[in-house]
Amino acid sequence: MKESLLLTPGPTNVPKRILDKTALPMIHHRTKEFQAVLERVNANLQKVFLTRHPVMTFAASGTGAMEASITNLLCQSDTVLSFSAGKWGERYRDIAKSYGMDVKSLEKPYGEAFTPQEVERGLAENPKAKAILITHCETSTAVTHPIEAIAKFTRDKPVLLMVDAISGLACDPLRMDDWGVDVVLAGSQKGLMLPPGLAYVAVNDKAQAAIAGSQLPKYYFDFAETLKAMKKNDTPFTPAVSLIRAMDEALAMLLEEGMENVWKRHAQVADFVKKKMQSLGLKLFSKAPSNGLTAIIMPDGIDSGNAIKVMRDGHGVVMADGQGELKGKIVRFAHMGAACTLPDAQRGFDAFCDAMNKTGFKAPVHA
Amino acid sequence: MKESLLLTPGPTNVPKRILDKTALPMIHHRTKEFQAVLERVNANLQKVFLTRHPVMTFAASGTGAMEASITNLLCQSDTVLSFSAGKWGERYRDIAKSYGMDVKSLEKPYGEAFTPQEVERGLAENPKAKAILITHCETSTAVTHPIEAIAKFTRDKPVLLMVDAISGLACDPLRMDDWGVDVVLAGSQKGLMLPPGLAYVAVNDKAQAAIAGSQLPKYYFDFAETLKAMKKNDTPFTPAVSLIRAMDEALAMLLEEGMENVWKRHAQVADFVKKKMQSLGLKLFSKAPSNGLTAIIMPDGIDSGNAIKVMRDGHGVVMADGQGELKGKIVRFAHMGAACTLPDAQRGFDAFCDAMNKTGFKAPVHA
Repeated sequence: MKESLLLTPGPTNVPKRILDKTALPMIHHRTKEFQAVLERVNANLQKVFLTRHPVMTFAASGTGAMEASITNLLCQSDTVLSFSAGKWGERYRDIAKSYGMDVKSLEKPYGEAFTPQEVERGLAENPKAKAILITHCETSTAVTHPIEAIAKFTRDKPVLLMVDAISGLACDPLRMDDWGVDVVLAGSQKGLMLPPGLAYVAVNDKAQAAIAGSQLPKYYFDFAETLKAMKKNDTPFTPAVSLIRAMDEALAMLLEEGMENVWKRHAQVADFVKKKMQSLGLKLFSKAPSNGLTAIIMPDGIDSGNAIKVMRDGHGVVMADGQGELKGKIVRFAHMGAACTLPDAQRGFDAFCDAMNKTGFKAPVHA
Repeated sequence: MKESLLLTPGPTNVPKRILDKTALPMIHHRTKEFQAVLERVNANLQKVFLTRHPVMTFAASGTGAMEASITNLLCQSDTVLSFSAGKWGERYRDIAKSYGMDVKSLEKPYGEAFTPQEVERGLAENPKAKAILITHCETSTAVTHPIEAIAKFTRDKPVLLMVDAISGLACDPLRMDDWGVDVVLAGSQKGLMLPPGLAYVAVNDKAQAAIAGSQLPKYYFDFAETLKAMKKNDTPFTPAVSLIRAMDEALAMLLEEGMENVWKRHAQVADFVKKKMQSLGLKLFSKAPSNGLTAIIMPDGIDSGNAIKVMRDGHGVVMADGQGELKGKIVRFAHMGAACTLPDAQRGFDAFCDAMNKTGFKAPVHA
């Protein structure tokens, strides 16, 4: 069987060029050699996030970055507007709730996206809101929110627009500064093509100004300390050296290709997968599809778990089931990061067709 | 020049056998394949910590584990007894302070260790103390605390003995269950021979009973959720897959050697380095030396920074300077983890002698 192909919405396949960097002999982090790496990755992260503001890197998974953005930028007494239409939006909301904030939870059914007008209305009804929490790419439903249009309503107001782009970054377009997004979260194991273990938080001036006012205790994820250390190409605590050297390579790869081209590639592959699925007569779950993954509704009588098993065991192709109530009902076919290529998508589609046939669906023969 | 040799107290050299595992093709974490890895590493961590209790693994640096132990096991209203005689003891104390606890800070001069009687007295004077915070190996001073003897005074009392063994684990002896230690913290990049990026917290029954009573908010480092997931060989959040597979290999290596033998090797190499230094007429900084590193006081007129530069640039041997007020005054010669061998220690000593000669010290010729 061919090498296994991860078409999951994180971790995504890690190119050998990047994996090899994780296996370099260890170096100490308080050295000129590692400082040079930190200086370069911090500069290159800004080019990938499309921001002139600092992008902090933490040894953590994405949830750590979500929590850090709450504890560093907000207070317990703050009103927070949460827009959720999926598992990840709910998580961001729940973290704010767990810190005792006054969370106004605006919800839409899974598969749908908030419109900019709905966000505008939510903000008008909650004028004291200190922050808006929203997901860029909601991987539980394959939805992307219209962040650019939403930011038009927030960028000139004191409210912080905090965007969980953990799985959206480097898949769906996101221009932090041009759009006026205040906080962008990301994770290493999605569009950045890295192993899991690093999480990112970018903060613009408005967000940085909120740090001093936050009274929630924190230590490991302290933004003020992290930003101070970054100015000296340092980190407050021992960084994940091997992952950061791998990130150096991953960022170089993204910038060699250029972010516009990275986004175009994702759009092209997403379009290919969607059209192929529609050619089978299948329906897509997302009403505002992300370029990072496609969620396919299973026809009556087919359990997505069975289809996923056929793909994995028979083809070495790994896709994800739905989560929670969507388990068994959708297949999440990711085209994210390094595995976002037409050949990989074709391999995924071939496996998918075989799985459909074997689990009871008569798929037309495909080219 | 030979390959660079890290004789720093973390990160330590990572054997190729372990590094290679970090570069394996990525796999998804919600799979039987990765569950099997989690099951094995969780069982093997218990053998390395010498405990039948769960050892939690987090994607974080050691400081994350320190903070997690505070936020999950204690309340803001708790009295906490901190014993510090170095930078790392102070950090543990400061984290407790940052969460608003009533911290009784007992301090000794750098280079010294608390005696069991001093801990007993501290506890007698603060009978309401909910926890004792103490460092196993204090790498800023190369001191090891007598944890076994200290635990005799705490194991039958309600107070939690919380031991920061981030750099001590798998270097200096530590028998969590036999000694009756309630909480043991560790980090990946020391005796465990891994890249930095993983942190550990082991909790016995007494510590686990404290989880429910803690009202401090937390999310990413939530022990209750972590322990629940571990029972299903799962993790609450995406784990650092590549580092955990490397850990699988590192734990296998430690257990092949046997913990008794690992400790003996560290004791033997530590003894070798100490005697060599004393043969040069040099004084050691630590009054209770750790087996993981040796701190050598620089003779008058020699700046440790200069000596370290000669070793690094001329020999590819990396040692650490003192921290804070000790900067320039001591060399910290680590013999920790995979680089804890007599040949590596000899190479370190040769480099050290050359550095002493070149920075103005007349070292006797050594064998």
